Amino acid sequence: MKTVYFDNAATTKIKSEVLNEMLPYLSTNYGNASSIYKIGKDSKQAIEYARKQVASLINCESNEIYFTSCGTESDNTALKGFAYANKNKGNHIITSKIEHPAILETCKFLESQGFDITYISVNSDGFIKLNELENSIRPTTILISIIFANNEIGTIQPIKEISKIAHKNNIIFHTDAVQAVGNCLIDVKSMGIDSLSLSGHKIHAPKGIGALYVRNGVDFVPFMNGGHQENNKRAGTENVAEIVGLGKASEMAQKNLMTHINYLLKLRNHYLTCLENNFQGKYRINGSLENRLPRKFKCFIFKFKFI
Amino acid sequence: MKTVYFDNAATTKIKSEVLNEMLPYLSTNYGNASSIYKIGKDSKQAIEYARKQVASLINCESNEIYFTSCGTESDNTALKGFAYANKNKGNHIITSKIEHPAILETCKFLESQGFDITYISVNSDGFIKLNELENSIRPTTILISIIFANNEIGTIQPIKEISKIAHKNNIIFHTDAVQAVGNCLIDVKSMGIDSLSLSGHKIHAPKGIGALYVRNGVDFVPFMNGGHQENNKRAGTENVAEIVGLGKASEMAQKNLMTHINYLLKLRNHYLTCLENNFQGKYRINGSLENRLPRKFKCFIFKFKFI
Repeated sequence: MKTVYFDNAATTKIKSEVLNEMLPYLSTNYGNASSIYKIGKDSKQAIEYARKQVASLINCESNEIYFTSCGTESDNTALKGFAYANKNKGNHIITSKIEHPAILETCKFLESQGFDITYISVNSDGFIKLNELENSIRPTTILISIIFANNEIGTIQPIKEISKIAHKNNIIFHTDAVQAVGNCLIDVKSMGIDSLSLSGHKIHAPKGIGALYVRNGVDFVPFMNGGHQENNKRAGTENVAEIVGLGKASEMAQKNLMTHINYLLKLRNHYLTCLENNFQGKYRINGSLENRLPRKFKCFIFKFKFI
Repeated sequence: MKTVYFDNAATTKIKSEVLNEMLPYLSTNYGNASSIYKIGKDSKQAIEYARKQVASLINCESNEIYFTSCGTESDNTALKGFAYANKNKGNHIITSKIEHPAILETCKFLESQGFDITYISVNSDGFIKLNELENSIRPTTILISIIFANNEIGTIQPIKEISKIAHKNNIIFHTDAVQAVGNCLIDVKSMGIDSLSLSGHKIHAPKGIGALYVRNGVDFVPFMNGGHQENNKRAGTENVAEIVGLGKASEMAQKNLMTHINYLLKLRNHYLTCLENNFQGKYRINGSLENRLPRKFKCFIFKFKFI
């Protein structure tokens, strides 16, 4: 039986070009990047090259990228890191009701530590209510965290508008972009994003590697305490091979972005046509088709409801 | 120029047998272990097999093993997890002055969160002072965390005695065994260890994978908040390939343990003889040669002092 894989929103296959870049660091180039001799320096150099590749994908400076073990760790680092770094300013955080568990469960933990969380709702099209966001802001609000594109229905939130509201009120804006990176254009500078999570295994890099972008000038308390790795911001021996893999996958995602998006849109429209031809009036699409990741429609066909 | 690598205490090369086990999960077997279809179930099955291999190495139950991204994460998970889970019982933690930064920096963070830490000292041979440990215990002491074998000089602490003191006082005993696992015999049951950290890249598995053992019946608050992975105790998409690698490396470490130890002891004694023959009276060994990891002597030769 021929299997067709329809769940690239859950995880992707590592591209052969990515694996090829990784392999030397899984065999002969095994140096610890914190070691001061050649084999260690080689690892360090490979990490710094990958950092540039990842930074380029979202248009930030390379020293604004911190490697983590996954998107979940990036979200934990951002939310806990900003919360603890700003607890003297306030204890209020705003997020939405349609975040990934990596955000929602981290918020629950922060609630247990004395932080106060507001969960704003979305409209019937799957977009957060901007007026509710503005009305939720208090003098003690230190952080707004809104998912870039929802992991179930793929709706892309109005990021620029959210960042404007955040910055008008001197509040840090984090976005979980794990589902969005590589599937839509992201420019953290022009979009006014202070902090962003991404994950390797969603863009044909391996599982077990992620990154957190934090704008220079925005401080956070380290989540993973220990050694001096990642500019004292993420302890633990660097996963050199997977960092190299994430770098290569980022480079390829950037290079192929428009081709990839157009291909997915073509697939999506083909499904839509099939749905309409075969189940006219018998299905419902959750959320808007405008401002939605093309990839998420691949999931969506398992989620439509016969009404 | 031929290079001889003398820093296996910093990191090790992945064994070819380990990489061979990993490769399918870096190519064709790319399923997300949380997915309910075949390719996902295959990943889940591979993870559970690896869990048994790791458990066997330290003689625990497989459901007592939680995969993490590194030894540092295991230490963060243990210390923060036990601290938050037991804060109603007390806020006092005892550790030593010769812990790895993964423990010391985590303790500093916990101090900032209202926990009180006692750092006990070591004698001139590099062993913790058991009477100081006993005298430090208070009614509010919830956790004792002592490194199994020190990461600089390799002295193996009196683990059984520490666990007896801890349990006599109804206190959880965690040990950072990152340097010890694979280099000396560890049996968590007979040694009375409640919690133990280990790291893949110290035993010829890749960088980016670790594990935390926590005895059944001992509760901890998750460090990484998010999805339901690892029995709701460690969120984030599982790093299947590296988990498989850690499993295989653990199996090989267990199988080859005595041969490995004897080989390292032979090397160590060769160095000692060379030192004595060439620098008699001009060097000093830090700490005792009894109850010391054989491997650490490889580091030690860069650390001796001419006096």
